[in-house]
Amino acid sequence: MPESTIEFRVRYAETDQMGVVYHTNYLIWCEMGRTELMRQLGATYAELERQGVYLVVSRAQIRFRNSAGYDDPVRVRTRLTRMRSRGVTFHYLVERAEGQRVLAEAETDLVCVDSSGSPRKLPGSIEELLDGALEPQIA
Amino acid sequence: MPESTIEFRVRYAETDQMGVVYHTNYLIWCEMGRTELMRQLGATYAELERQGVYLVVSRAQIRFRNSAGYDDPVRVRTRLTRMRSRGVTFHYLVERAEGQRVLAEAETDLVCVDSSGSPRKLPGSIEELLDGALEPQIA
Amino acid sequence: MPESTIEFRVRYAETDQMGVVYHTNYLIWCEMGRTELMRQLGATYAELERQGVYLVVSRAQIRFRNSAGYDDPVRVRTRLTRMRSRGVTFHYLVERAEGQRVLAEAETDLVCVDSSGSPRKLPGSIEELLDGALEPQIA
Amino acid sequence: MPESTIEFRVRYAETDQMGVVYHTNYLIWCEMGRTELMRQLGATYAELERQGVYLVVSRAQIRFRNSAGYDDPVRVRTRLTRMRSRGVTFHYLVERAEGQRVLAEAETDLVCVDSSGSPRKLPGSIEELLDGALEPQIA
Repeated sequence: MPESTIEFRVRYAETDQMGVVYHTNYLIWCEMGRTELMRQLGATYAELERQGVYLVVSRAQIRFRNSAGYDDPVRVRTRLTRMRSRGVTFHYLVERAEGQRVLAEAETDLVCVDSSGSPRKLPGSIEELLDGALEPQIA
Repeated sequence: MPESTIEFRVRYAETDQMGVVYHTNYLIWCEMGRTELMRQLGATYAELERQGVYLVVSRAQIRFRNSAGYDDPVRVRTRLTRMRSRGVTFHYLVERAEGQRVLAEAETDLVCVDSSGSPRKLPGSIEELLDGALEPQIA
Repeated sequence: MPESTIEFRVRYAETDQMGVVYHTNYLIWCEMGRTELMRQLGATYAELERQGVYLVVSRAQIRFRNSAGYDDPVRVRTRLTRMRSRGVTFHYLVERAEGQRVLAEAETDLVCVDSSGSPRKLPGSIEELLDGALEPQIA
Repeated sequence: MPESTIEFRVRYAETDQMGVVYHTNYLIWCEMGRTELMRQLGATYAELERQGVYLVVSRAQIRFRNSAGYDDPVRVRTRLTRMRSRGVTFHYLVERAEGQRVLAEAETDLVCVDSSGSPRKLPGSIEELLDGALEPQIA
């Protein structure tokens, strides 16, 4: 079960007047998490786009458990949880890097499109790479 | 069934290298929509915070239907769909302002907290205002 | 002396934990201001890009005078102050929409490039449109 | 001449439809740079704010030299270049982490205010810490 892990500190720009991270930033962090997972699997997303393969978010769902503040160390753990011929689903756990308190849990569906935005199949080579990263399904 | 409607144009900063609006911006627009709905109901959110009443997003869900580009005119229609003693649910329809093509559909749960972040009940006066804005439930 | 004027309210996402607008957002607002000025002059920037003409910020300078908070009504007044064969300079006044208190004053230089990022001259038709918008120089 | 160095990769959210980093993000990176420099000097900014000492950007100036794209590794080098009793000036060099190509050069003035936004002097202990980090002035 491959999983990527990234760590970074909360930027001042990411806080809001409630004194905590503004909620939409968590989804930006999730995208950083899947960039890293794909790199780790050997399918650098920047390279994919250069080949005309785009993964577009079609659905996002996120639950916020605890808040994070400026300069807090944060960790995002990303896994690939589902694959279809034209898309993939990622799952994210955002937690404090110290103490592992869960901050948010999210899931996003992405669909594969070409440079004109039309749906297309994932290239076979990418499908194979991602397939190997899928969580084993219990029969 | 009160509904707020806001219209604005996509900012250059909101686009990404795919040439369309980066997905998390839609949730920022949703927040602008509920700011407007609350103002319309007479419960200006900025004023609420000054009284120590905060509404924090605890869950967000969004489906992306079509993309929008730089300078496109966008409309967000916001409704209050559910109320609990300590929270509320809003529903959002994001569409192109010309032609009404749906861009995204979203829902967020918000919980009421005090300035220290502890859950609290909505003030009675606010509860009444919002209650009047709730969609009628069919029996 | 043509000048564009835009008005909008501060978004929650634009505040930071100091309780005011995070400073870089002012430069995003400036970009909205020049989008509007160009539209007003008949040179819609989105259309320019479709023709392979890009204006890239090469320098930005901004002075912050007063802070703005969530939901505050803001006005940005934009003027074209200088033109060169390969670039233009805009000046911005950001103020509270009620009472006209100055929030910030900024200036940006933009250079003209083609789709590959190489410097190019402004198309003659655009140069003419912008030229007419230049502030008169006192002899 | 103490200098902080941070490195990170460009986020997808930071790109715009020109295919490069949207310009205002560079100033967000500068703020990350000064957060790190202050931590290194022993004056964690998050801690300063908890003591009622705020540093507010009063002026920013930035020159853009080269563009950066999604996933590019970026480095920000931050130095303290000037100190006054009520404020400080930082200088930033943003460069590609591989090859050291300069992307942007920036400078920001910050003024010290209390929690109500009124100007105040830097606490003596902080002034000392920062003073030691100042670049030596050639007589």
